[in-house]
Amino acid sequence: MPHPARHVFVCSQQRPPGHPRGSCSAQGSGPVLQAFWGELQKRQAHERVAITYSGCLGPCDGGVNVLVYPEAVLYQRVTPDDVTEIFDQHLDKGEVVARLQAPAAVW
Amino acid sequence: MPHPARHVFVCSQQRPPGHPRGSCSAQGSGPVLQAFWGELQKRQAHERVAITYSGCLGPCDGGVNVLVYPEAVLYQRVTPDDVTEIFDQHLDKGEVVARLQAPAAVW
Repeated sequence: MPHPARHVFVCSQQRPPGHPRGSCSAQGSGPVLQAFWGELQKRQAHERVAITYSGCLGPCDGGVNVLVYPEAVLYQRVTPDDVTEIFDQHLDKGEVVARLQAPAAVW
Repeated sequence: MPHPARHVFVCSQQRPPGHPRGSCSAQGSGPVLQAFWGELQKRQAHERVAITYSGCLGPCDGGVNVLVYPEAVLYQRVTPDDVTEIFDQHLDKGEVVARLQAPAAVW
């Protein structure tokens, strides 16, 4: 199978309750990941898009962090409600969803 | 912080002993990840290279799988002994380590 055109990494890092850095898991990465997988299935996009959970991507206070390659675009504070837009605009058309993109100072 | 020029994802998927697909963890992803982190530290390369553990990347029977973006190059059967070469050649110079690259039929 040729590699996918775009690869989405959903930070799924866990940390104990009360940890000072928090975590993307505590901020809802599980439902975000499920939303991406659901959308992948609905669109039957398995050959052109890969969805993978990952460890910590760094800027924990802006989670849920979602990183898209090959463009190296980091989306922050992603919720399940944002997933359709990321698919429609970025994963399908290659256009960055500016309202969710991390500022240059962060990534 | 600007985003790193290259991002290494080390598959660290675990599965129960005896699982028919095996796993990159069972094939030694932990020592591979530690080798990458060690080399990152030794070279003080944190601003230009990111190392992240990830969930399953797909072709489990060729693990340990290591995926490098933005080039979308998948390395297979990676051992800790390969890490210096991947750093020297790919992460520092942008040249693919051909002997470890997954064939096009796989990725």
